[in-house]
Amino acid sequence: MAKTMKAFVMKRIGEVGIMEKPIPGDPGPNDAIVKATTALVCTSDVHTVKGAIGERTDHTLGHEACGIVDRVGNAVSLFKPGDRVVIGAITPCYKCENCQRGFTSQCGQPLGGWKFANIKDGSFAEYFHVNDADANLTTIPDNVSDEAACYATDMMTTGFKGAENSDIILGGTAAVFGLGPVGQMAAVGARLLGAGLVIAVDSIPRRLQLAKEYGADVTIDLSKGDPIQKIMELTNGQGVDSAIEAVGNQSAFEACINATRPGGTISNAGYHGEGDYISIPRLAWGVGMAEKTIKTLLCPGGSERMNRMMRLIQTGRVDPTKMTTHHFKFDQIEKAFWMMDTKEDNMLKPVIHIA
Amino acid sequence: MAKTMKAFVMKRIGEVGIMEKPIPGDPGPNDAIVKATTALVCTSDVHTVKGAIGERTDHTLGHEACGIVDRVGNAVSLFKPGDRVVIGAITPCYKCENCQRGFTSQCGQPLGGWKFANIKDGSFAEYFHVNDADANLTTIPDNVSDEAACYATDMMTTGFKGAENSDIILGGTAAVFGLGPVGQMAAVGARLLGAGLVIAVDSIPRRLQLAKEYGADVTIDLSKGDPIQKIMELTNGQGVDSAIEAVGNQSAFEACINATRPGGTISNAGYHGEGDYISIPRLAWGVGMAEKTIKTLLCPGGSERMNRMMRLIQTGRVDPTKMTTHHFKFDQIEKAFWMMDTKEDNMLKPVIHIA
Amino acid sequence: MAKTMKAFVMKRIGEVGIMEKPIPGDPGPNDAIVKATTALVCTSDVHTVKGAIGERTDHTLGHEACGIVDRVGNAVSLFKPGDRVVIGAITPCYKCENCQRGFTSQCGQPLGGWKFANIKDGSFAEYFHVNDADANLTTIPDNVSDEAACYATDMMTTGFKGAENSDIILGGTAAVFGLGPVGQMAAVGARLLGAGLVIAVDSIPRRLQLAKEYGADVTIDLSKGDPIQKIMELTNGQGVDSAIEAVGNQSAFEACINATRPGGTISNAGYHGEGDYISIPRLAWGVGMAEKTIKTLLCPGGSERMNRMMRLIQTGRVDPTKMTTHHFKFDQIEKAFWMMDTKEDNMLKPVIHIA
Amino acid sequence: MAKTMKAFVMKRIGEVGIMEKPIPGDPGPNDAIVKATTALVCTSDVHTVKGAIGERTDHTLGHEACGIVDRVGNAVSLFKPGDRVVIGAITPCYKCENCQRGFTSQCGQPLGGWKFANIKDGSFAEYFHVNDADANLTTIPDNVSDEAACYATDMMTTGFKGAENSDIILGGTAAVFGLGPVGQMAAVGARLLGAGLVIAVDSIPRRLQLAKEYGADVTIDLSKGDPIQKIMELTNGQGVDSAIEAVGNQSAFEACINATRPGGTISNAGYHGEGDYISIPRLAWGVGMAEKTIKTLLCPGGSERMNRMMRLIQTGRVDPTKMTTHHFKFDQIEKAFWMMDTKEDNMLKPVIHIA
Repeated sequence: MAKTMKAFVMKRIGEVGIMEKPIPGDPGPNDAIVKATTALVCTSDVHTVKGAIGERTDHTLGHEACGIVDRVGNAVSLFKPGDRVVIGAITPCYKCENCQRGFTSQCGQPLGGWKFANIKDGSFAEYFHVNDADANLTTIPDNVSDEAACYATDMMTTGFKGAENSDIILGGTAAVFGLGPVGQMAAVGARLLGAGLVIAVDSIPRRLQLAKEYGADVTIDLSKGDPIQKIMELTNGQGVDSAIEAVGNQSAFEACINATRPGGTISNAGYHGEGDYISIPRLAWGVGMAEKTIKTLLCPGGSERMNRMMRLIQTGRVDPTKMTTHHFKFDQIEKAFWMMDTKEDNMLKPVIHIA
Repeated sequence: MAKTMKAFVMKRIGEVGIMEKPIPGDPGPNDAIVKATTALVCTSDVHTVKGAIGERTDHTLGHEACGIVDRVGNAVSLFKPGDRVVIGAITPCYKCENCQRGFTSQCGQPLGGWKFANIKDGSFAEYFHVNDADANLTTIPDNVSDEAACYATDMMTTGFKGAENSDIILGGTAAVFGLGPVGQMAAVGARLLGAGLVIAVDSIPRRLQLAKEYGADVTIDLSKGDPIQKIMELTNGQGVDSAIEAVGNQSAFEACINATRPGGTISNAGYHGEGDYISIPRLAWGVGMAEKTIKTLLCPGGSERMNRMMRLIQTGRVDPTKMTTHHFKFDQIEKAFWMMDTKEDNMLKPVIHIA
Repeated sequence: MAKTMKAFVMKRIGEVGIMEKPIPGDPGPNDAIVKATTALVCTSDVHTVKGAIGERTDHTLGHEACGIVDRVGNAVSLFKPGDRVVIGAITPCYKCENCQRGFTSQCGQPLGGWKFANIKDGSFAEYFHVNDADANLTTIPDNVSDEAACYATDMMTTGFKGAENSDIILGGTAAVFGLGPVGQMAAVGARLLGAGLVIAVDSIPRRLQLAKEYGADVTIDLSKGDPIQKIMELTNGQGVDSAIEAVGNQSAFEACINATRPGGTISNAGYHGEGDYISIPRLAWGVGMAEKTIKTLLCPGGSERMNRMMRLIQTGRVDPTKMTTHHFKFDQIEKAFWMMDTKEDNMLKPVIHIA
Repeated sequence: MAKTMKAFVMKRIGEVGIMEKPIPGDPGPNDAIVKATTALVCTSDVHTVKGAIGERTDHTLGHEACGIVDRVGNAVSLFKPGDRVVIGAITPCYKCENCQRGFTSQCGQPLGGWKFANIKDGSFAEYFHVNDADANLTTIPDNVSDEAACYATDMMTTGFKGAENSDIILGGTAAVFGLGPVGQMAAVGARLLGAGLVIAVDSIPRRLQLAKEYGADVTIDLSKGDPIQKIMELTNGQGVDSAIEAVGNQSAFEACINATRPGGTISNAGYHGEGDYISIPRLAWGVGMAEKTIKTLLCPGGSERMNRMMRLIQTGRVDPTKMTTHHFKFDQIEKAFWMMDTKEDNMLKPVIHIA
C-alpha cells in the first residue's frame, strides 16, 4: 500500500489545492478507514474556505462521500474491509449526554456531531477516517448508485429534516424558501410527509423548474414581486402551516415568519453566517403570542437514518441525482470547488469521481 | 316545498327499505338542513342493520354524503342556502370536554361524535340535519366532484387517520392489514406520510391490485401463506415500524402485533364487533416490555380536516373515486345496500345519486 | 333589575374611570350574562390604557373575573342562572379553523381568542357578557375561593402554559426570567411538570423570595451580576433544558437563548410591546443549527383547561392567592389600576371585590 | 488483588447461593469493571430463578447496584478507577439501529438492553462488568447515598417511565394499579409530572399508606370493593386520563382499560409472565374506537437519564429510601432473596451492603 494519498485541502483561508498526505493509520478500536470512491462538493465547503469556521492549515475538506471499507478497529463488529458504504456528513459518538438526549448532531457540544472537515480531516481524500463505525457506516444497497448514496449524507437528510421539523400536517400547506439542493430536498420532503400544497420560492428559473419536477405544486419567482402576498392568496389569507428556511439569511428567515399562519411552524435549515443577530418581525410574530414555533436543525447523521434514506431511493420516492449538473475527476476538484462558489454554468451539484 | 321526503331506513334489525318521512323542520340556532345530492354506502351501515348498535325503528341510515345547504339556524354565520357542501361522518359539538381535549370523535361520550344514523337520523334521505353547522359543513371546491367529496367523509379521513396514528417515520416501513376502502386509504395515507416501504395485505386479488395502483410497494396475498414471515423477510427480520389494522378482528389485530418491531406502533382502524375480548399475543408484545404502542381511532370529522381532505383531492395526492365499483339511483339503494353485505360482483364502494 | 350598571372603562388612551353603562341585554343563543363578584387587575390592562392595542372609547377593561350566571341563551345547556362560575381570559368560539386545529387562542385570527376588553367590553363591570358559554364557563368547586379562581383565568393558565411549552423533561433543568405573576406561575408550572432544578431570575427581592416559597430551587438576583454565568455554573456549563421568558423584552428574550443548551427550548410567555424586531443572538443560536426551539403562547382558555386549574387548586398543588398583595372595593378600582402601573407598595396582584 | 470473588448466583432453576467466581478480567476497550458496594434485590431476580427467562447455570443475579470503578478499557474517556458510580439496570450499546431510533431498552433485539443477569452475569458480586462504560456509568453526587442511588437504576427509572408513558396532562387525573416499588415510583412520577389527582390502588395497607406519604391524593383498597366504581366517582363518571399498570397480570391490565376515559392512555409497567395472551375488554376499549392508547416500557437506562434521577434525589423531589424495609450484609443475601419471594415481614425492598 502507498504510504501517502492525495487530499483536497484548505491550505489557509481563501486557498485550496490537492496535496499529498499520509494515509490514515490505525483507526482506533471503534473506528474505520474508508477508501473513497465518490463525493459531492457542498456550498458549506466554500464557506469553510472563506473562513466561516476560522483558520485552518492543510485541512482536508469534504463531508459528502461514499467508499469501500479499508480497515476497521477491533471493537467494530458490523462492518469489514470490502464493504461498500456511505457515511452521513455528521458522525455522532452516540454516547454523550446530548446524543443520549436524541440531539446527536449536537454531539458533545453545540454542532459537535459535525466532525468531517471541521474538527478533523474531511472526506475529499483517497482514504478517510470514520469515528464510531458501527453507528456511522451504512451499507449501500446493490441497486443504489454511489452518486445517489452521496446525496443521502447531507442534501437529503438535511432537506428532509427541514421538512420534518416544520410540523407538516396531512393536507396542510408548506412553503420552502430557497431552492438550492437543501431547499429542493425540503420541497421533496414536504411532499413525502403529506403536505397538500407545496409552494417553492426562489429567483432562479432552473431551480424553480426543478422544484416543479420534484413535486412542488406552485413555484414563486422572487424576482417578480412579493412572495408573501402570493402565499396569502394561495392560502385563503391565512399563511402556510409550515415554512422552511433553506437559505440562511435575514430576508428568507423573516419571510418565513411573515408567511406562516398562527400556530404554524418555521423550520430553519439554513446556516446563518453573518451578523450578530437574526431578527424576528414583532408584529408577524403576534407580539410573541401567535403560537408560531421556530425550530432549527443540523444535518442528522447515523446509520439508522442513512438506511432510511437508502430505502427512499430504492423504492423510488426520490431520485436525488436529478440535482447533479456536473461531473469531475478527483484531479479536477479545485475547478468544481470554485464553480460551486460562483454557481457558474448553473451549477447545482457537482459529483467528484475519486476512484 | 313538499312536506315529506324519501328516506332509506332500518325498519328493524335485519330489515331495510325506503319510506316517506317528514322533511326536517327548524334546524335549531347552530344547525343546518342539507338537501342531499350524492352518498356512499358503508359496510358499517350493514353492521348497524344487523344489530351492531342495537335495535332501531324506521331509523334513517347513511353517514357519507354531500349536498346543498337548504336552511341554516340564526347563529350560523359561515354558510347560507345554496352552498355546495360535504359533511364528515362524525359531527362533533366542538364544545364539550372531550372536544376541547382534542378527542372530537369522543364528543360528549365514548364514540359520541358519531351522530348520523346512530343517535339521530342519517343522511340517506332527500334532506338531512347537520348539527353545529359552522364547524361541520365544508364547502366543496369547484374542481372536486360530489363523488370524490363523499369519500372524504369517512373512507379517506378514517384510513388516513389510521396511517397518522401509526407513527410513520420518514423512510420507515408500514404494513396495512385489510384492503377494503379504509385499508386502501390507509395504504395511500402511509405513502403520503413518508413511509419508505408500504406493504398491503389481503386475500382478494382485485383489492391487492388496487392497493398496488394506490402506491403500495409490495402486496401480500394472505391466501398464499403466512404474511408475518414475508414481512420479516422484507424488513431484515425486524418487523415493520408501523402496522395498521383495517379489518376489525382478532386475526388481523394479532397479525399487527406480530408484524411490528420493538418500538413500533399498531394503529387500529377496524371496528371490532364481536367477543368479550381482543387479545394481545404476550410474547410478540415483549411480555409487556417491547415498547409497542397500540392506538385506536374513530373517523375524525370537522370542517378543518375536511378542508384538508378536499385539498388532497384538488392537488392530485389521491383519487378516491378509483374505489367506486358501482353507481345507483336513490330508488335502487336497497339493492346497493345488500350487495355491500355480500360484496357480490366485487363491490368495493357503490355511489348513490340522490339528486 | 336596574337598567344600568357601573363599569370601569378606558375613556380614551391614558384616561380611565368608573361610568354607568346599560346592563347587557339578550346574550344571544350560545352566550351568557354573568354578574361579577371578584376580579383581578392585570398589567396588560395598563398596557391597553397606554395604547398598546390602539384607541378605545368608554371601553370596559378587565379579563380576570368570576361571578354568578345571570342569564343564558336558549342554546346553552350546561349552565343556568345562579351557577357560580369562572371564565378564562381568552374565550374561543371552538368552531373556527384555528380552534379546530387546537390553536384556540388564535380563534378566527391572530390572538383572536382574546375578546374581553379587546374586541368587546371586558369584565370590570357589575355584569358582563360571555360568548359560547357552554365552552367558556367553568363551575367553581365549593372549596375554591373566588379569589383563587380568578387567578386561574390568566396568571395560572398563562404561566403554566409557559412551562408546558418549554418541553420540560423529568429531572431536567429550567430557568424562568421575570417573576411577575406570570413568571411566578411559570416557576410553579416548571416544578409541577417535573423539572429537577428550577432557577428563577429577577431583580426584586420580594419576588425572588416568593419564587423560593413557590418551589424554585435557586434564585438569581439580576442586579448582582450576569445570570447566564450563574446558570452555566449550575448546569455544568451546558445551559438549561428549558427557558421561560416572562417579561416581554429583548433583554429577557436574549437571555433565554443564551441560557439554553443545544436541543433546548425557549418558551416565550411575555408580551413584546415595542420595536420592529425581537432579535435572536446568532452565535448562541448555533448559527441556526443548535436545535434550540422557540415557542410562543397566548393564555389558553376554555372550560376543560379551567377545570384542570380548579383541580390543581383543590388538591393543593398551588395556592395562587399568595400572590395577592392588596384588596380593593370596586369603587376603588382606579387606585388599584394606577398602582398596578407603578407597582408601588410592592404591588404584585390586587383583588377587586365587586359584589 | 484476589483472583476470585464472591457472587450470588442462580445455580439452576429454583436454586441459588453464594459461590466463588473469577474476578472479571480485561473489560474490553469500551467497558469497565466496577467493585460493588451496595445493591438492591428485585422481584424480577426471583422470577428469573423461578425460570421466567429459562434455565441458567451458576449465573450471577442482580441488576440494581452501585460501586467504585476498578478498571476501564482503553477507549473509555469519561471515567477512571476510583470513581463512585451507579449503573442503570439496562445498559444499551447506544449504537445499534434500535438504540439510534431511541428505543435503547430494545438494544439489538426485543428487551436487548437488559444484559445484567440475563445475557451476562449480574451485579450481585464483589466485582461486575459494565458494557459501554462512557454511556452507562453515572457519577453519584456527593450528597446522594449509595442506597438512594441504587433505587435510580430500576425502581425510579421504571416507575417514572410508567408515569411518563401515561401522557399525564397538567391537572389531569391518573391512577396507579399496584403499589410495589415500581408502582410507588409511578405514583411519585405522576405527581412530579403534573397530575392534579393521583389515585393509588392496592390491597396491602402498608403500601397504601406509603403511597399516601409519597403524594397520592386518594388510595383505594382493592380488598374493599370495585376500584373502577370508585375511580368513576372521583372523575365525574369519565374515568382517568392516565392509568398505570404496575403489576403485570390480566386483572390489573384490564382494570386500567376500564378505568380510562376516551382519549386516555394506559401505560403498562408490569412484566406479564404468564399465558399466551393479555386481553383487552372490547367494550371498554370502545370496540377499537375510543382512542385509548396502550403503551409499554422496559426500564430506561443510560447515564443521561441516571443523571436526571440523581438530580431529582438531590433537589428533594423524591426520597426513594422510604421504600427500604430491610438491610442485609452480602453473606445474608440468600435470606433477603427468599423473603423477596414471600414478601414476609412486609418486605418492600431490601438493601444489600456488599462492601
